[in-house]
Formats: sequence, C-alpha cells, structure tokens
Amino acid sequence: MANVDYPEPVRALIIHLKQLPGIGPKSAERIAVWLMQQGQEMSGPFAEILARAGREVIECRICGFFATEAGGCAICDAVQREEVSLCVVEQPTDILPLERSGAFRGHYHSLRGRISPLDGIGPGELRIGELIERIRSGKFEEVIIALSSDVEGEATANYLAEVLAQFPELKVTRLAQGMPAGGGLESADELTLMRAMQGRTGI
Amino acid sequence: MANVDYPEPVRALIIHLKQLPGIGPKSAERIAVWLMQQGQEMSGPFAEILARAGREVIECRICGFFATEAGGCAICDAVQREEVSLCVVEQPTDILPLERSGAFRGHYHSLRGRISPLDGIGPGELRIGELIERIRSGKFEEVIIALSSDVEGEATANYLAEVLAQFPELKVTRLAQGMPAGGGLESADELTLMRAMQGRTGI
Repeated sequence: MANVDYPEPVRALIIHLKQLPGIGPKSAERIAVWLMQQGQEMSGPFAEILARAGREVIECRICGFFATEAGGCAICDAVQREEVSLCVVEQPTDILPLERSGAFRGHYHSLRGRISPLDGIGPGELRIGELIERIRSGKFEEVIIALSSDVEGEATANYLAEVLAQFPELKVTRLAQGMPAGGGLESADELTLMRAMQGRTGI
Repeated sequence: MANVDYPEPVRALIIHLKQLPGIGPKSAERIAVWLMQQGQEMSGPFAEILARAGREVIECRICGFFATEAGGCAICDAVQREEVSLCVVEQPTDILPLERSGAFRGHYHSLRGRISPLDGIGPGELRIGELIERIRSGKFEEVIIALSSDVEGEATANYLAEVLAQFPELKVTRLAQGMPAGGGLESADELTLMRAMQGRTGI
C-alpha cells in the first residue's frame, strides 16, 4: 500500500516554503497546512501580493535599494537628503537598519555584495564602477564605508579606500569599531549602529 | 522628512508573511527581502503554487482530510485499508502523524475541532453528525478516539463515547495514556504515537 501523503499541490507548497530562510521542514509543513485550513480567502490574496512584489520591485539603478518603476526610489528621489554624504553598504537590506538608527541622512550605495575570492566574487562583480561614476559626476564630500566588520568586509573596505584615493578632495571614512566583531549590519541593533555611525574614523 | 521604508509591495508582503504561524516581524522581513533578492524567477512560481494549492485543495467530504477534486482523497479512495476500523481525530493535520507511526491502517474521521465552550464550539460545530452517519451506513467494528489528552480533548472524547453508545455492537476505544499530558497530536513523535495506538484501551 502506498504511503498516504498530502495532495500534490500541498506537497509542492511545502517544498517551496522549505526554501525560505529560517524555515525548516516542520515549519514548512505547519505553514502549508495552516494556509490550506484558512482556505482560498487567505492563499489567493497572499499569492497575488507575492506575485506583484516579485513583478514590480526592482533594484534602484542609482543606489541599489528596493524600488518600483511606478513609485521610484524612496531614497534617491527624496528631496531633503544631505547631498554631500554617501554611505556604501554591502546589501540593500543594510540600508534600512542604518536609516532607522537616525544617525545618517545622506545617500546610499549598495555594492550588491563584497569581495569574496572563495565565492568567486571579485571587484568586477560588485557595483564599484557605478560608485566611482556617482562620485565623479556628483558633489559628494564624504564617503562612509559601512561594510561588515569581518575579514571579507575589511578586505573590501581596504580595496575601496585604494580605489577612492583617486579623488584627493574626498573624505573617506568607515564605521567606528563599535560594531561587534564578525557581525553583519543586518543583525546589529539600532543603538550599536548609531554609535558606530557617530564615531566613524578616517581610513 | 518621511521615514524611508521598503516599497509598498514589499511592505504588503511582510504584513502577509507575519500572519503565518511561527513567523515574527523579523523573520517576515528577512523572508520578504530574500524573496525580492531572488527575483521574479523565485516569487512568480511560488505565488502560482500557493494560488493553485488554495484553489485545488478541498476538505474530503467523507473523512475531512486534505483532498483535490481531480485526485480525490488519498485515504478514502485507497482500496487496501482496513474497512472495519475508524480513527476519530480533531484536525486533518492529525492524520499524517498517525499514519506515519505505522500502527493503524484503517479509516479516519476528522471532527474539524473539539468541544470548547470558551471558543463557542459545541457538538453542532463539529463533524459528529457525519461520523454517526458513517458508522450507521458503514461496517465499522471499532472506533478509536484519538483526540488530544487535555481537558477539552477528554471532554470531547467522553461526549463521543456517550453518543456512540447507541451502537451496542461497536467497540469504542481511545489512545493509551502513553501520550504526554496536555500535548496535542501534532507535536508528538512517531514512537509515542505508535505506543499510544498499540496500547489503546476500552472506554
């Protein structure tokens, strides 16, 4: 006798849910059956919102943050931001934690990663060319390098400092070492981020 | 200056993800931005599978397990199950854990809940009428009551035992008290469920 299992659409849903970060097999099953028990009034709109987000959300061509064609970029399109400060981060997800710390009101630039030879990611894979172009054509006076304080983040910061030496007028700073060692931006609390931003030092 | 936040489609997605069982605000945000970073190749098919599951998956009219119109019910449509044993559970999600314990190969009946006066759930809200009809028109010799071993589960079991007394030929049993006190079926491990099924006692 074949083993009884969920109907195929439920199994397919469990397989997809398991791929999500932080969702194990047990959680995926619990979420899937919960969704089925809620019925189509829950899963229909949920699916629509998921599809719409995937369809409409793009990477801002300037800063790399999440944006939409219709709504633009909440950062680059803002009129009241400091035009002279640029904060370089690894990922678009690093921007909101910094923003919530309240210690920075300039512009951002997501590199889309950091130099990581083991993963085959060199400077060419990152948005460094775009960064140089922004600095060349903009009026930035300071670039704050806000990368993770682990080995790869440090290496990327040092590489950026060398590259940015071509702009002798530009002040290049980095986050203070108030950041916990080895920690990424995403998991830091707001106070730590604020202190690190306020205590930034020359590079 | 307005606070920077994710674009509206991402915020809507986070709100929906937060409703899922076991997903807090932090997890919802992490999952949403992960989905956006994967791009439309991930979120598009995911949304389709979610919508399809919600559209196609129904409650089996006989046992209450998850089924589809096209594929039927994996339990009620099986030809080699024991026709004389019926296992009564609270939820359709209780069926697979029992099935995986390997100790039962009969039919199931999900009540869609249990008697819970505080939540306004009386016998009329449960699939008890359907249960009596199945027993009356079927050839069941034993009904195993496999409800949670907490107060509401016990009360529902006692109520069922009274109702089923109208069938003097029917053997009514319950799971052995090997179940941990106060625990639901869903979180029990397979060995515990197998022992409870094997040691079932008269009611």
